[in-house]
Amino acid sequence: MTTLEVGKKLVELCRAGKNAEAMETLYDQNIVSVEAGAPAGGPTESKGVAACVEKGKEWQAHHEVHSAQAQGPFPHGDRFAVFFSYDVTQKDSKQRFQMEEVAVYTVKNGKIVREEFYYSM
Amino acid sequence: MTTLEVGKKLVELCRAGKNAEAMETLYDQNIVSVEAGAPAGGPTESKGVAACVEKGKEWQAHHEVHSAQAQGPFPHGDRFAVFFSYDVTQKDSKQRFQMEEVAVYTVKNGKIVREEFYYSM
Repeated sequence: MTTLEVGKKLVELCRAGKNAEAMETLYDQNIVSVEAGAPAGGPTESKGVAACVEKGKEWQAHHEVHSAQAQGPFPHGDRFAVFFSYDVTQKDSKQRFQMEEVAVYTVKNGKIVREEFYYSM
Repeated sequence: MTTLEVGKKLVELCRAGKNAEAMETLYDQNIVSVEAGAPAGGPTESKGVAACVEKGKEWQAHHEVHSAQAQGPFPHGDRFAVFFSYDVTQKDSKQRFQMEEVAVYTVKNGKIVREEFYYSM
């Protein structure tokens, strides 16, 4: 698949709430995932599909998602960006808030090898 | 200025329609600007503040901007992303359309040294 095709498939799966399926089918097994920040100064980088799926599960365990939007993909060479907007309630604090982030994905040989998340802390 | 401060100032100036002022005050003189694509297979990369200002003028000469939105900045290390949405009419074709793009900026020593634009062609 081309970079644009990978991007379209990722957005399609995310819109359908199939984020884990997107990771399992579109990510390279050595995917590097980089957050803008991490709780308690922990590592911002994780590696491998399993770690990404786990990170997603962890996030979902702590948030109730009322709605999620994905705009894109917006291609640029071997990369593409997606703009995500979420309306969520944090389960612990019961606080409802809107969250936006930009994700930038790098594609190599038809697989996503890197994802970077841009957001305010 | 920190990366986040530069990002906030850029978004503030873009929202006020002061794009040229943003370039003149926030860009490093050796700024590298990279488009997702270029007309007729021309170069996607340009260098220097003057080239960026000229590129902006050129775009504005061909488009009537009905409204423009800038969401962000969304920081990630020494970079930040902005999500731009435009409602424009292309002056030559008189076609009105909505345009969205993600821009990723890299900051070094308080100045923007690189900008990359992500969009569909």
